[in-house]
Amino acid sequence: MMATTTTSIAPRTSPRKHQAILDAAELVFLRDGYLGTSMDEVATRSRVSKQTVYKHFASKEALFVEIVTSMTSRAADAVDVNMWAEAAADDVRTYLRDYALTQLTVVLTPRLMQLRRLVIGEVARFPELARALYERGPKHAMSQLAATFEQLAERRLLTLDDPALAASHFNWLVMAEPVNRAMLLGDDSIPSGPELSRHAEQSVAVFLMAYGAH
Amino acid sequence: MMATTTTSIAPRTSPRKHQAILDAAELVFLRDGYLGTSMDEVATRSRVSKQTVYKHFASKEALFVEIVTSMTSRAADAVDVNMWAEAAADDVRTYLRDYALTQLTVVLTPRLMQLRRLVIGEVARFPELARALYERGPKHAMSQLAATFEQLAERRLLTLDDPALAASHFNWLVMAEPVNRAMLLGDDSIPSGPELSRHAEQSVAVFLMAYGAH
Repeated sequence: MMATTTTSIAPRTSPRKHQAILDAAELVFLRDGYLGTSMDEVATRSRVSKQTVYKHFASKEALFVEIVTSMTSRAADAVDVNMWAEAAADDVRTYLRDYALTQLTVVLTPRLMQLRRLVIGEVARFPELARALYERGPKHAMSQLAATFEQLAERRLLTLDDPALAASHFNWLVMAEPVNRAMLLGDDSIPSGPELSRHAEQSVAVFLMAYGAH
Repeated sequence: MMATTTTSIAPRTSPRKHQAILDAAELVFLRDGYLGTSMDEVATRSRVSKQTVYKHFASKEALFVEIVTSMTSRAADAVDVNMWAEAAADDVRTYLRDYALTQLTVVLTPRLMQLRRLVIGEVARFPELARALYERGPKHAMSQLAATFEQLAERRLLTLDDPALAASHFNWLVMAEPVNRAMLLGDDSIPSGPELSRHAEQSVAVFLMAYGAH
C-alpha cells in the first residue's frame, strides 16, 4: 500500500545530510502544516541547498510521506515491545495497567499529537497516510490486544465472548479521553506522568468491572 | 471567549445574501481547508461580489469562526433535546441506548466529521475554535451525563462513586471508536444506521456491566 514511501532517491548521497533534511522537515511540517511548509525553509534549516533536498526526496509530498510513516512506525514499535513481555503474568490488573501506561506514555507526546492533527487535517489530500496511521496505530494495537485477551480468557483471567470487541473497549477506555482532549485543546492539555498513571488505573478498573474473572 | 463571532457586520445587508455566503463558505472551507479557501470562490458560489462578502464578514477569519461556531452549536443543541426527555424512565438500559444512538446519529455526519478534521488541523492557528468545539461537544455532553448519572445512582439504577468519571467512560465507550475511525479513514467509514444501533447497544452493555445496579 505505502509504495510512496520508497520515493526517496538516495544513491551516492550523504546519510548525514539525509538525516538533517528529515529532522528539519519534521520540525517545519509539524509547525506549519503541509500547505504552509516551504521547501526553501527545509533546505535552510538543514544547511543544504534546495537541489540537495530534491536529490534526497523527489518532492514535498515524498518528504511528507516519509516523515509521517517513520514517526508512525517508531511509535507502534515502542508500544509493541511492552505487549508480550508481561502477558504470561497471572496478575492481569498489573499487566493491563503497565500496558495501558506504556501506550499512553508513547502516544501522548507533543510530536505525535502534532503529527496526528496534521494527518487528520490532510485526510482529503493524503488518505493513504491517515490510513497508515490508523492501521499502525489503533488498529494494530487492538488486534494485538484481542489476541492477548483471548489467551487471558482461556486461562479464565478475563471473562469475554468477543475478544475484538473487548480490545476495542479497552483501547478506547484508555486512549480516547486524553487523545481527543489533546486533539482539540493542544499540547498543553497532555496529562503529566502521574495523571497518566491514575488514568491507566481507572481505565483498567472499569474494564475489569466489565470483563474481569467472575 | 468567542468574541470574534461578533465580527460579522450586517447593518442594512440582505439576510438572504448573508445566508448564501454562509452556505457557500461552509462548502468551500470543509472541502479546501482554511488556507486553501479562496474568498473569490466564496463570492462566486454565493453569487455576490467580493465586496459584498466583506460587507457581511470583515475577513476570511471572521467567516471561518462563524461557520465553525454555528455548526458546533447546532450539533450540541440537537443532542441536548434528547438528554432529559427520557431521564425519568426506570428502564436505564433503554434510556442510555436511546441517548447514545441520538448522539452518534447527530455527530457522525460527513459535515461534522469534516468540520472536526478541519478544526483539529487548525488548532495552532485557531486554538479558540478547537476549544469551543471541545467545550460545546464532548465536555458539554459529559457534564450533562454526569448530572443525569448522579440522579440515576441516587435512584439506585446505576452504581457509581464518581459521576464525572462514569460520564467520561460512557461518552468515550460510545463515541471514541466511530469518531476516531472517521477522523483517519474518512467519511466512507462512517457506520450505517443499523451499525450505529448495534454499537450503541454494545457500548451500553459494557457500561452497565461496570456501572449497572447490583
